[in-house]
Amino acid sequence: MTGDASLAFRTVDWRDGAVRLLDQTALPNEVVFREYRSVDGLFEAIRALRVRGAPAIGIAAAFGVASAAWNAPANASTPELAAVAREAADRLARSRPTAVNLFWALDRMRRALEDARNESTSEMRKRLLDEANSILEEDDRLCRAIGEHGSALIADGDGVLTHCNAGGLATSGYGTALALMFAARDAGKRFRVYADETRPLLQGARLTTWELMRAGIPVTLICDNTAAQVMREGRVQLAVVGADRIAANGDTANKIGTYGVALLARAHGIPFYVAAPSSTLDLSLEHGGLIPIEERASDEVTEGFGRRTAPVGVEVYSPAFDVTPAELIAGIITERGIHRPPFRESLKS
Amino acid sequence: MTGDASLAFRTVDWRDGAVRLLDQTALPNEVVFREYRSVDGLFEAIRALRVRGAPAIGIAAAFGVASAAWNAPANASTPELAAVAREAADRLARSRPTAVNLFWALDRMRRALEDARNESTSEMRKRLLDEANSILEEDDRLCRAIGEHGSALIADGDGVLTHCNAGGLATSGYGTALALMFAARDAGKRFRVYADETRPLLQGARLTTWELMRAGIPVTLICDNTAAQVMREGRVQLAVVGADRIAANGDTANKIGTYGVALLARAHGIPFYVAAPSSTLDLSLEHGGLIPIEERASDEVTEGFGRRTAPVGVEVYSPAFDVTPAELIAGIITERGIHRPPFRESLKS
Repeated sequence: MTGDASLAFRTVDWRDGAVRLLDQTALPNEVVFREYRSVDGLFEAIRALRVRGAPAIGIAAAFGVASAAWNAPANASTPELAAVAREAADRLARSRPTAVNLFWALDRMRRALEDARNESTSEMRKRLLDEANSILEEDDRLCRAIGEHGSALIADGDGVLTHCNAGGLATSGYGTALALMFAARDAGKRFRVYADETRPLLQGARLTTWELMRAGIPVTLICDNTAAQVMREGRVQLAVVGADRIAANGDTANKIGTYGVALLARAHGIPFYVAAPSSTLDLSLEHGGLIPIEERASDEVTEGFGRRTAPVGVEVYSPAFDVTPAELIAGIITERGIHRPPFRESLKS
Repeated sequence: MTGDASLAFRTVDWRDGAVRLLDQTALPNEVVFREYRSVDGLFEAIRALRVRGAPAIGIAAAFGVASAAWNAPANASTPELAAVAREAADRLARSRPTAVNLFWALDRMRRALEDARNESTSEMRKRLLDEANSILEEDDRLCRAIGEHGSALIADGDGVLTHCNAGGLATSGYGTALALMFAARDAGKRFRVYADETRPLLQGARLTTWELMRAGIPVTLICDNTAAQVMREGRVQLAVVGADRIAANGDTANKIGTYGVALLARAHGIPFYVAAPSSTLDLSLEHGGLIPIEERASDEVTEGFGRRTAPVGVEVYSPAFDVTPAELIAGIITERGIHRPPFRESLKS
């Protein structure tokens, strides 16, 4: 089963001019695919987390730019087509602020656009689609390399704690933190994953458990507040998470709660790793304090799953991400290998 | 408003031979009272957390024993009545394992029963009801004393983080951890409470915010996994929680997630306090490792919000409580004052 450890279908794909997404808000109860031909539709899908995970957002946005070009009027000139694609990129860049892969992917699309500025419209459309497909296929290769490099961290008999979903659903299909697990499983290791449910939107409960169960990897779902106890009971030997943006010093923005997991891991002597493709690095930022953090709507906390669970009018604080300081991170696993502290040097190589 | 800072009604009360509970599972959407005349009904209500919080469980069980006697056949002899009451106490003792107040309250009821063994049945019924009422009234006095002793820990302008609900709803009406807040508010202090929502059953989101909003105390609801970030942002100067059982060395069992909060508080230099009446002390246990910890059903995690939020068949680990080691606790506030480490000595005085 090597190579099929994760999803049997693509998280994000291209379908006849449309961006096709596996709607992650419907999981695990339903497997629903949605197709987007309008930038507005895709923008809302990203905002609503129908597609989420830093690499997957980047891939979706890249296809969104291509789709905008493919759905422009047939009689558009090359400059008109370029303007449509640029507007799509600009709009999609405003969908979510934290994951740097979004801006990285859109920059690649803008460069492809620039390279094609003297081409025919059909060539421009083709170049944009090719670039989006390249981003997708590269992500798959990078994720598999992350799995190869990182799987050695998982020993037979280990418990591995993860937070949120850094799996196939967060990427082109193989995952980052979960790539370690898929590769370790393919290497014949037996281990158990402890999946934080990850409030408010329960990506751990809904997505990570679903992926791991499909892959035949033993997984135990816990509430976020149970991670400390699971560590205290000696059930966890490794913590590994994904990332939405990594600053030059190694400070890592990831789903809210990651920082707490890192502190708890430190308190229990458990190594804490981050896994992400190099497209998640933002070496232009000196430290994590410069990473913009999105704040989410309060109703995701107060009525997230069909019924109201807090008083009307209650004040809510719901940042989507936090920043884990580099000093809590044992290593950052990219497609290039495991980067060790000090990250300011190791992340450059 | 002194003395009215908390609830305008009783969490647990006696109504014409029945135990009357404010059904906490319906909050905050509905205020529903339920009356129980059968031990089985009350047993299920305790199991289902219609009444919860260590002191409130003890009070409810005490009234449950009285109610069993009051609802016994009118022609029962004194020994027959005593047997009914004893059976009720034995059954209610099996409702939940962790909160020691339950066993403490039932022991008081058994002693009252023993003292009345040569009395008439009407006198025995009266003695049992008197004892339950004493437990209720004592709890109110103890909670107010806890508030008086502990409120000095809250400074003007502070942020105070709490976990689960240790408020009026967890006691006769004034609370333990929340008693500090009610008393500080009555003393004119301005502060803000950060309430962990407390998965899986959301006692923080549903109950603590509701109580504090009713009392006019500013409160911000956060997901459990956001506590670390809120601390990092410097918003919290004090953490205070209730307790379900405190061992002789100060180790404290409380709602799952409390141990994590204590570790995070330590990492940020924030003092962490426990507030509980002395009925929560179990000096017969040398340390917290001896406290029995209840494990809850998986569907509280997987379908707690009215719809399924995890794959069918997923393995779940859901302990209801954890144990915070004494070394993370700055002080334990009881009606006698603030007990400081080493607790093995200070808790005896």
